[in-house]
Amino acid sequence: MAHISKKAESMPASAIRKLVPFADEAKANGIKVYHLNVGAPDIKSPECALQAVVDACKKNDHISYTNSLGFAELRQGMIDKYYKKIGIDIELPEIMIDVAGSEAFSVAMQIVADEGDEIIVIEPYYTNYNTFARLYGITLKAVHTDIRDGFKVPGMEEFEKLVTPRTKAILISNPSNPTGKLFSKEEMLQIGEFCLKHDLFLISDEVYREFCYTDEAHFSAMNIPGMEQNVILVDSVSKRYNLCGARVGCTVSHNKDVMAAALKFGQSRLCPPVFGQYAAIGALDTPQEYFDAVKAEYIARRDCAIEMLNAMPGVFAPKPMGAFYTIAELPVDSAENFCKWMLTDFRYEGQTTMTTPVASFYKTAGEGTRQVRIAYVLEVPELRKALNVLAEGLKAYPGRIEK
Amino acid sequence: MAHISKKAESMPASAIRKLVPFADEAKANGIKVYHLNVGAPDIKSPECALQAVVDACKKNDHISYTNSLGFAELRQGMIDKYYKKIGIDIELPEIMIDVAGSEAFSVAMQIVADEGDEIIVIEPYYTNYNTFARLYGITLKAVHTDIRDGFKVPGMEEFEKLVTPRTKAILISNPSNPTGKLFSKEEMLQIGEFCLKHDLFLISDEVYREFCYTDEAHFSAMNIPGMEQNVILVDSVSKRYNLCGARVGCTVSHNKDVMAAALKFGQSRLCPPVFGQYAAIGALDTPQEYFDAVKAEYIARRDCAIEMLNAMPGVFAPKPMGAFYTIAELPVDSAENFCKWMLTDFRYEGQTTMTTPVASFYKTAGEGTRQVRIAYVLEVPELRKALNVLAEGLKAYPGRIEK
Repeated sequence: MAHISKKAESMPASAIRKLVPFADEAKANGIKVYHLNVGAPDIKSPECALQAVVDACKKNDHISYTNSLGFAELRQGMIDKYYKKIGIDIELPEIMIDVAGSEAFSVAMQIVADEGDEIIVIEPYYTNYNTFARLYGITLKAVHTDIRDGFKVPGMEEFEKLVTPRTKAILISNPSNPTGKLFSKEEMLQIGEFCLKHDLFLISDEVYREFCYTDEAHFSAMNIPGMEQNVILVDSVSKRYNLCGARVGCTVSHNKDVMAAALKFGQSRLCPPVFGQYAAIGALDTPQEYFDAVKAEYIARRDCAIEMLNAMPGVFAPKPMGAFYTIAELPVDSAENFCKWMLTDFRYEGQTTMTTPVASFYKTAGEGTRQVRIAYVLEVPELRKALNVLAEGLKAYPGRIEK
Repeated sequence: MAHISKKAESMPASAIRKLVPFADEAKANGIKVYHLNVGAPDIKSPECALQAVVDACKKNDHISYTNSLGFAELRQGMIDKYYKKIGIDIELPEIMIDVAGSEAFSVAMQIVADEGDEIIVIEPYYTNYNTFARLYGITLKAVHTDIRDGFKVPGMEEFEKLVTPRTKAILISNPSNPTGKLFSKEEMLQIGEFCLKHDLFLISDEVYREFCYTDEAHFSAMNIPGMEQNVILVDSVSKRYNLCGARVGCTVSHNKDVMAAALKFGQSRLCPPVFGQYAAIGALDTPQEYFDAVKAEYIARRDCAIEMLNAMPGVFAPKPMGAFYTIAELPVDSAENFCKWMLTDFRYEGQTTMTTPVASFYKTAGEGTRQVRIAYVLEVPELRKALNVLAEGLKAYPGRIEK
């Protein structure tokens, strides 16, 4: 019998999604499952985005390929109507549409690193970085940040320790999935200086840019002076307009070699999803009030989540300043066992809560084994119910550790 | 300055798409360019497909992720309303939705082969197989087929010569892009027997299944007896419903290990495009008359193309029995130079024609250097005009070779 490849066999299942079958089974048994596990919010998309898809379906009698770079109208529109507004100054050849942020950083990793090369990440980090690193034979080296410090980025001496001749890039997510950490301008400038010193690329995943909860504006890697040739920006419409399913993102860089390489990868998958591109074109007309309302809503959700989590005995959750995640440390033997147990064993008034264990978001073995990621993607009343169920689960969990 | 990876630098640009800038320039200068270069037909999509997208945009107020496998409704619908009808018998766990056929065969190649492993292909073959093989460190070994034989598949002794301990699979496209070759049931059974003898997977790209022009029905690799654990079917809605831009395809296999591995790859890109999935659900209700009309249209186009091509002095094009491509041998020094020259230098009444040079579709060096792929994707009157321009171009081309 033919056997699958070692690569495919040894590939890890998604830490975020491997509990899905248990959630499905609970639901099949009539249990209400509150999903705090995935960054899939219940916020409406801008009406102009969905209307643009409707209009395109009426105007076109078939759906053809676009250029591998995506619609020129979308690329130019993003420059004029979005990036210019937020202070990122780019030209048409410096932006390419992708199959969401997932493709953008997967390709960016391959553009900066060959097999055997190394990329520095900041742990805890988005777990799919691991998947792609493994597929491409890239080694991730992780700078540690600590939940008790609010995931503060350490001094550059910690990065310095990890640099070898094979180090090619730093990969960050700002604001961060999974921690909600928002990088300050000073932190970004330091990272930039460090990259220039060592000739490193900086892959900056900024898909949560619209979700910043400080008075200070988000400081994009694109605006670090002197880093024009080193920065690869990963972006997406998924979170910004709640169009996660559209699968439309982009790669932005002033570096011509990077963009030429990105196009070659893009040609191999022909073109980005076209219906989604229409939605993204429509979304460019989203009024500022939409973003203001969404931000206010997330601040309310965050405040509710952080307050309720820290009120649970033995639970600690730092207050995130960006994105819509927080990491909470729980009084349990194993967050993975707890998350699974909530789905398979625990019911409170016919309900349970799904959260994501984050040990696999750390490179350092043994870190984060008692932590979960909580996406505060439900309306406050639902979120209260969900966290209440979580609190009841923590009380009842057989592996609870009293501290 | 930071440098891009050797992998990204050495990756070839798409042979099909690298002439695009020259075509764009011609168009910018007011020249009408007939596109015979890409399989992007002008046929209407079924109305039910586009209507389903409109309905979904009205019913949903935001577009969330689906399961990484795709909508269960789409998977079950494809089984019940499509595969059952064409005699392919599968269950729900045996189908997964992908980001079009491109993702499906890219992942299938990684599922069957590790770095250093080998896959047997039949040349000329779809050039993106090269791109993915190169990215994954897989070696393609090619069985040669000849334009003068109508790209007939040779006896298994030719395959036997290529087998080594590293051979993991055979990869075919049936009907074939780029040749239009339709594999007979006998050829498929022989290939199946050969795969079983050597424990090989058979990756069968059948995205052109609805475009067969013989009385005999298409014989799917899924129906080769004894090959249940060896076949990975690659499929797509792109050509079937002229939804190329939807970016929705699927992987189908009875092999549980294959499907489990495919899911892990799928999780890394979160989910397939959701608007496109709605279109694919709608397309399941496409009436048979749609397929009948499309097939009749393509037969008329093919007959027109083959007749006109073979009437040009020095040109030879075999009659394809499937897909909507043919390969034509031209009386030129270099098909690549000719294709480029048509775009940059030749104009006939303000028009020119774009075709694809196919040397890169061959593994064997020096093969196909005088051949082009012609996609007969225009209505007959337009196709006549396009081929007339091609004929004029051939007369005027400075590198013409008299035979």
